[in-house]
Amino acid sequence: MYIEKINSPEDIKKLGIHQLNVLAAEIREGLMNRLSKRGGHFGPNFGFVEATIALHYVFDSPKDKFVFDVSHQCYTHKILTGRKEAFWNDEHFGDISGYTNPEESEHDQFNVGHTSTSVSLACGLAKARDVKGEDGNVIAVIGDGSLSGGEALEGIDYAAELGSNFIIVVNDNDMSIAENHGGLYRNLKTLRESGGKCECNLFRAFGLDYIYVPGGNDVGELIEAFQSVKDCTRPTVVHINTVKGKGYEPAETHKEEWHWHMPFDPATGESPSGGNCEDYGSLTCDFLMKKMKEDRSVVTIAAAVPTNIGFTEAKRKEAGAQFIDVGIAEEHGVAMASGIARNGGKPVFATHSSFFQRTYDQISQDLCINRNPATLLVNTASVYGMHDITHLGIFDIPMMSNIPELVYLAPTNCEEYFAMLDWSIEQNKYPVAIRIPCNGVIHTDKPVDTDYSDINTYKVTQQGSGTAIIALGDFYQIGEALAALITEKTGTAPTLVNPRYITGIDEALLEDLKKEHSIVVTLEDGILDGGFGEKITRFYGHSDMKVYNYGLRKEFIDRYAVDDVLRANRLTPEQIFSDISE
Amino acid sequence: MYIEKINSPEDIKKLGIHQLNVLAAEIREGLMNRLSKRGGHFGPNFGFVEATIALHYVFDSPKDKFVFDVSHQCYTHKILTGRKEAFWNDEHFGDISGYTNPEESEHDQFNVGHTSTSVSLACGLAKARDVKGEDGNVIAVIGDGSLSGGEALEGIDYAAELGSNFIIVVNDNDMSIAENHGGLYRNLKTLRESGGKCECNLFRAFGLDYIYVPGGNDVGELIEAFQSVKDCTRPTVVHINTVKGKGYEPAETHKEEWHWHMPFDPATGESPSGGNCEDYGSLTCDFLMKKMKEDRSVVTIAAAVPTNIGFTEAKRKEAGAQFIDVGIAEEHGVAMASGIARNGGKPVFATHSSFFQRTYDQISQDLCINRNPATLLVNTASVYGMHDITHLGIFDIPMMSNIPELVYLAPTNCEEYFAMLDWSIEQNKYPVAIRIPCNGVIHTDKPVDTDYSDINTYKVTQQGSGTAIIALGDFYQIGEALAALITEKTGTAPTLVNPRYITGIDEALLEDLKKEHSIVVTLEDGILDGGFGEKITRFYGHSDMKVYNYGLRKEFIDRYAVDDVLRANRLTPEQIFSDISE
Repeated sequence: MYIEKINSPEDIKKLGIHQLNVLAAEIREGLMNRLSKRGGHFGPNFGFVEATIALHYVFDSPKDKFVFDVSHQCYTHKILTGRKEAFWNDEHFGDISGYTNPEESEHDQFNVGHTSTSVSLACGLAKARDVKGEDGNVIAVIGDGSLSGGEALEGIDYAAELGSNFIIVVNDNDMSIAENHGGLYRNLKTLRESGGKCECNLFRAFGLDYIYVPGGNDVGELIEAFQSVKDCTRPTVVHINTVKGKGYEPAETHKEEWHWHMPFDPATGESPSGGNCEDYGSLTCDFLMKKMKEDRSVVTIAAAVPTNIGFTEAKRKEAGAQFIDVGIAEEHGVAMASGIARNGGKPVFATHSSFFQRTYDQISQDLCINRNPATLLVNTASVYGMHDITHLGIFDIPMMSNIPELVYLAPTNCEEYFAMLDWSIEQNKYPVAIRIPCNGVIHTDKPVDTDYSDINTYKVTQQGSGTAIIALGDFYQIGEALAALITEKTGTAPTLVNPRYITGIDEALLEDLKKEHSIVVTLEDGILDGGFGEKITRFYGHSDMKVYNYGLRKEFIDRYAVDDVLRANRLTPEQIFSDISE
Repeated sequence: MYIEKINSPEDIKKLGIHQLNVLAAEIREGLMNRLSKRGGHFGPNFGFVEATIALHYVFDSPKDKFVFDVSHQCYTHKILTGRKEAFWNDEHFGDISGYTNPEESEHDQFNVGHTSTSVSLACGLAKARDVKGEDGNVIAVIGDGSLSGGEALEGIDYAAELGSNFIIVVNDNDMSIAENHGGLYRNLKTLRESGGKCECNLFRAFGLDYIYVPGGNDVGELIEAFQSVKDCTRPTVVHINTVKGKGYEPAETHKEEWHWHMPFDPATGESPSGGNCEDYGSLTCDFLMKKMKEDRSVVTIAAAVPTNIGFTEAKRKEAGAQFIDVGIAEEHGVAMASGIARNGGKPVFATHSSFFQRTYDQISQDLCINRNPATLLVNTASVYGMHDITHLGIFDIPMMSNIPELVYLAPTNCEEYFAMLDWSIEQNKYPVAIRIPCNGVIHTDKPVDTDYSDINTYKVTQQGSGTAIIALGDFYQIGEALAALITEKTGTAPTLVNPRYITGIDEALLEDLKKEHSIVVTLEDGILDGGFGEKITRFYGHSDMKVYNYGLRKEFIDRYAVDDVLRANRLTPEQIFSDISE
């Protein structure tokens, strides 16, 4: 096995083309070993094996610097830069993250997990090189799907101004996570079909030099192309045509399902059944499909992650013009939702909590200043959400809830979630955001309110005394457990409150709590800084009420175990009871 | 005067081309009356008179809908839609805002003040029209300068997918606020020079139809062009070439200075001298110029508003390659700063507080997760900053200070500001943001610290007892006045604290305050929700300390008088003293 001798990029420079092709096949075995057992980004990694080999063959990392967009295609890069154990040796799977990570290797420039950032970050590397009078190549690697993101387009537009060595490898596999959306993809298609020769060329229109490489999975062709641009003195695009999922038939055939895949049997491509568990993705899709069928002015908008709210290819087709995937273009998604609402439509824009971070200004300026009644569905907004440092769902409360005019809602169970969603779609007064529950599909048999227009009215779900627990959203169930524990330990039942509204306080209720309570405990599924509980504490700041805020510390956590994080933040009912009993 | 008979867009449809040309001249008189006496966006409005007349002549607002990007070119639109009094009658200047405003007129679709939003917002209007089965034209008007913004590029990319009537008028005057930056502007130049005929066409590359109109200040030519695209069934760009500041020689000659202009004498173009007051723009520029000359790795980055940190055309030239204007591309600016810092450069990226809103995700993901030591200078971050609803500087504390790893600093005077800036540029451990003071250039003769690496250490500037005042940044001077008032009224001097760090609390100091104090007052120049004071209150939540948080209510305020806002938020020393004396 050639791979046995590869411990750094230097080692592959000694191999010939034939040997490099064998190496590519070996690398796919390592990828398969890890991905089939652990899950992860399948299609991006399988499609970019040859290109990574060619990049490391031609360039000299770390002096020459690669910046991988999203960095979900970086596994081969990790294999070639001293981290192959994490692919062949199951015990070492945990040694690496799924993304580039400077803490792992000098060959990794940035921690990256969001899309569309590579060109701008790499522009910075190049600019620093230039002002310091140094040399070396800077290479940004970006997939076609990421090109539609505003940050990428800003970077591509700026790049021409560098006027020095800068290489953008556009890894074009004609797919985003789902199919691509946006006019630029027609131009990529024309470029592919004309062998890069058509006159109208997006990259040239942005002032960049350009070459086209049809064989994006052909090591020899790639090496030749990269050698031709190495040490170039002008910003240059190398547009390569790869096959997503290359080398594994199920992934080549079903590209969307295999973009990211859970563990599977390599022989069949099948994963162990997850059973018939309910999940909020398909429940949300079913709900929205019904709404759209009843009312043609209801429009669902996703941004390149349609299946996270259940919109599979079949469902998208069924929804027709009322379903929009804007591609990776979250800013556009929010602004467009505002425009739809302004003109009498009923838009619902959904994406991950972490991706809403790209839309602060659009939520503020395009939506909330204009008070347009659009609905934002905030997914995986929870410590129970995604566990990678780049995809955390614990920051949206401070990020969004302090924007004026927004009504941000935190349902505590399935029925409440859909009641809030229904109300939000049908009302025409407020921009509304809703946190999709993330702690399992929890049902209630108690009736839930259908009207949420009496803004900032909290709901007392258990009347008690002494201690009042205000438990927001996904942490309501911790509040219930804490209430039971207090009752058990003290013989006195506390009051339990479902606040529902993240964006404001119920002053009358909080004032009323003063009568029979001396302690208030707040619970929220997100960081405490700038969050919900602090608003309660400010209300009581100069009263005699003792307020304890529970949530997460302001920090970037990575690949964590939920229980560990909860304990470290003293979020178990026992820990909280111990604290307030002091 | 034709203008006397114009009370709605219907009225101009009755005029012939010659009469419309006379009307254009009359409109410039109205614009001149308002702008010379009140100040405002001069160049954008003077350049877009003929195009606005032609748009209203051809289309039927409000059924046909215009969305103006930034909307700083909307004065003629306001004149033609029933608001001309605000231009000819000085007493009615205050009737209108400087931007489109749906509360003023059914002809205004959105409150807009940020750049690059028009295409996405208009896409939403068009989409709602389509799903509801309605008709009518939707027209986005966007300047060439705004095209480089990520949201605009996302919108332009998406627009092709609409597949129905949608018109983008690109108002190309070959200028942003300063000169344009980015590769796309070469393509616009080639398009202008070829009469729109060159094969490589940015807009066509994005999948849009395209026509070119050389006479962007020729009513007849414009009318013909707009008539040719009216009721088009595919998204179409109408690229018009206008002259910024058209019709006023000083504005045509000095486009950057006349983008926005303070009141002036129309005969000479000269404004009353502002005296030789110090201002933080030129002080910041002088400081950075000195740093850049001493160290070639220092790089200053602006995003289309270079003069707000003093970088006039001459200073930009002097700084050479160490000064970068990325154009309207704030996301790119922050990400590029992170890249520069990663590769050993010392970047300083500066823009307005309100424009940093576009960079939440870049601050979080590109910068802070990577802990790269870039400096962000946050300008007009204050209630004393810009007073338009779209440009408020009172939200950056909750927006930025709750992002992990960022060190956000609030200087209380000129010397402290530059000490912090110097420290930030030279340190290599933290991403740092600094609020540029905004309450006048206040000097101190006391020594200021030069080292801020002991993060979250507050500074006691007056040791007292009973009450402790923690007064952040620009509100430190209110804290001083409050301290004097308390001493005068009670005979006991309070403690005064300059916290300096917005992003964390000094637990040891706060704990220590418990000994001799029963009241803590916090003061911050921004909204309270999610802000600085709430963190202090959370610390004291279950202690006996009484905490009073002072700052602004979470709301969008518009065209306000600072004193009114301060009083409404009980921010005068007398009001605070009255509150805490209860």
